[in-house]
Amino acid sequence: MISRILSAELAEHTGRRVTIAGWVHRRRHLKSVSFLVVRDRAGLAQVVTGSGLPGEESVVRVTGTVTARPQAPGGVELTEPEIEVLAEPGAPPPFDLYRPVVPAALPTVLDHAPVALRHPRLRAPLEISAASVAGFRETLDRLGFTEIHTPKIVASATESGANVFGIDYFGRRAYLAQSPQFYKQTMVGVFERVYEVGPVFRAEPHDTARHLAQYTSLDAELGFVADHRDVMAVLREAVAGMLASVRDRAAPAVELLGLTLPDVPAEIPAVHFTEAQRLTSSGEPDLDPAQERWLSEWALREHGSEFLFVTGYPMTKRPFYTHPDPARPAYSNGFDLLFRGLELVTGGQRLHRYDDYTAALAARGEPVEPYEGYLQAFRYGMPPHGGFALGLERWTARLTGAANIRETTAFPRDLHRLSP
Amino acid sequence: MISRILSAELAEHTGRRVTIAGWVHRRRHLKSVSFLVVRDRAGLAQVVTGSGLPGEESVVRVTGTVTARPQAPGGVELTEPEIEVLAEPGAPPPFDLYRPVVPAALPTVLDHAPVALRHPRLRAPLEISAASVAGFRETLDRLGFTEIHTPKIVASATESGANVFGIDYFGRRAYLAQSPQFYKQTMVGVFERVYEVGPVFRAEPHDTARHLAQYTSLDAELGFVADHRDVMAVLREAVAGMLASVRDRAAPAVELLGLTLPDVPAEIPAVHFTEAQRLTSSGEPDLDPAQERWLSEWALREHGSEFLFVTGYPMTKRPFYTHPDPARPAYSNGFDLLFRGLELVTGGQRLHRYDDYTAALAARGEPVEPYEGYLQAFRYGMPPHGGFALGLERWTARLTGAANIRETTAFPRDLHRLSP
Repeated sequence: MISRILSAELAEHTGRRVTIAGWVHRRRHLKSVSFLVVRDRAGLAQVVTGSGLPGEESVVRVTGTVTARPQAPGGVELTEPEIEVLAEPGAPPPFDLYRPVVPAALPTVLDHAPVALRHPRLRAPLEISAASVAGFRETLDRLGFTEIHTPKIVASATESGANVFGIDYFGRRAYLAQSPQFYKQTMVGVFERVYEVGPVFRAEPHDTARHLAQYTSLDAELGFVADHRDVMAVLREAVAGMLASVRDRAAPAVELLGLTLPDVPAEIPAVHFTEAQRLTSSGEPDLDPAQERWLSEWALREHGSEFLFVTGYPMTKRPFYTHPDPARPAYSNGFDLLFRGLELVTGGQRLHRYDDYTAALAARGEPVEPYEGYLQAFRYGMPPHGGFALGLERWTARLTGAANIRETTAFPRDLHRLSP
Repeated sequence: MISRILSAELAEHTGRRVTIAGWVHRRRHLKSVSFLVVRDRAGLAQVVTGSGLPGEESVVRVTGTVTARPQAPGGVELTEPEIEVLAEPGAPPPFDLYRPVVPAALPTVLDHAPVALRHPRLRAPLEISAASVAGFRETLDRLGFTEIHTPKIVASATESGANVFGIDYFGRRAYLAQSPQFYKQTMVGVFERVYEVGPVFRAEPHDTARHLAQYTSLDAELGFVADHRDVMAVLREAVAGMLASVRDRAAPAVELLGLTLPDVPAEIPAVHFTEAQRLTSSGEPDLDPAQERWLSEWALREHGSEFLFVTGYPMTKRPFYTHPDPARPAYSNGFDLLFRGLELVTGGQRLHRYDDYTAALAARGEPVEPYEGYLQAFRYGMPPHGGFALGLERWTARLTGAANIRETTAFPRDLHRLSP
């Protein structure tokens, strides 16, 4: 390994001669002195130097003496440096990576993602995203869940019917999976509690700030629940674990972006769909974005919570595998979790009896045959179960306040964008 | 949640009345007494009961008194039970799930995966797989790596040219990614050290025991390496971490399958390709499977290691982004890791200078244009770097001794199989 210490470790070495390595983040020439700011994975380091400095994004190794200087990042700088250039860029970056505010519009950022993501403000959401996933897994591991990996290539476009990508699969027609829904339910029969973090694909034909053609879905499913409220309790733990991990692992990114992370109440407030309708004076069988925003504000005002469960959506608005509310069968044991005005998670209790599945499909006028593999699980005995799916990019967008979901993933895929 | 304890916790409750829940694994009728064996995610529990027992794979909740009985699993059984059936199967399983050896051939197992995977011996490889991935992430997290999620839909079939699945992407032609290679290298420019655990896709037209159309790739890439040996050192840590996690988290699966897990030497032995050629009396520019097996046996005999690095493969046999050995430019700074007779990992140092990339593509008669997005990373300054990719299913197959890689993943995809 190229022998070096990280920028964040410099202060521990004051007075000693050390080596750092990274990218030239910025050059600054003052009247009597020049500075080089070197960026590595841990942060920035200031080097006091003469003239003839390598250009921005040059990869350098710098050996120098760690000298206290309160104004420098971390309170120290490197003096009397020897600078070695490990790689020289062929062109200056498309915009200045050192400016505190990104001096480029989103299309420019996306077209130049390989270099643009080096900007500390543009990479910060990805750090928050990685920390969130680590917290999700940590929480579910602790609760006895098993991680699974399920097929992304499926035989039929059964789950929602619309917005699927077709694949040429050895001369047959196949599809990219829109979710691991059927497989995670099946695996409840094997492990009782399972989760998957993986890509899902939606051929979303609209160009919006909220939709991606590929996103990362955080899926969980668990058996032996009494009803959907047990699923909501696990989701509450998962969200709390994700936030704890962001606080712990992505503290510099949170600070750089100046974020206020939400608290998760010990019990997240919940309103039934009919109550949500009453509160928003809605007669529709679903909530529109404005009503979701209103309900979020209401929850913050009334319950001091940035999270709100809406339970009991009408059965007509939920997928066929949804379990009805036994007391009010027109309403489901399904829920959404709203966070800062937007639906973040969809989940619920599922049907678990084979006969209920065949009846549900018949009621929707759907044939049983394309669901053959899925229905096997129920034919051979499945416990009451339920689960949820959380979109990672949407979560990160809500946490960071990103106006466009494309700011929360390194290389977004959408109606128009297929590279880089 | 359905109130209950797990089978593995029964012994702590001897003498008390408790509730368990799970599947009827087996019914046994003896002359004067009947037994019900209940399976949950933690193991098996024996229930002493009368006649009229629910059928295999019924989902049950059983309340009974925990009574010591040395011959029962865990040394206890439930007596004076009350049994409640939560879900009744519509058919008996396609084969007996309680037989110690799976009484079915692989095609039957795969056709009935949703129920077949409930057999403890068939689910055990998946537990080992999950534990391995947890150990991989844990190790790389500790070493300062950042987790990334990269596109699975790509614009061109550039990386290997062959065996890619085509997609209809909003009326354009696109492809399923064969690996995150280009993206993980790009992200070294952002985070220095990155990893991804995700699906990769190969339109493998051969029906073999070793190939899948979708598998899970454990990818890592790191910057500021001196050469490929730094990558090998990180890989050694990752493999050791995976095995430690299997020992820790999947101990029951290891015991059930009667596995002997390998030790990882502090330094895994390495031979240069030319030396491997000499040892196997080969004149070919690559090693065939028989030679890989021979070398693995040789490493065990000579070095007491089940792992062996082969370094310095000829440049002609490695991808265009491979870094040559500066001292012998016909040979690469690339390596394979052999494990128990088979190549498990491919890795190496990559080129990091933009001009080296354009020269390498020109030498292979390839245009630069399809690589535009990828080459951006190098145009703007990249450190010396390298990485590796480990196939999760192949790893699990080697650990468990599975004859067919399809035994190591829940729902394999191959030339013929697209469901369940």
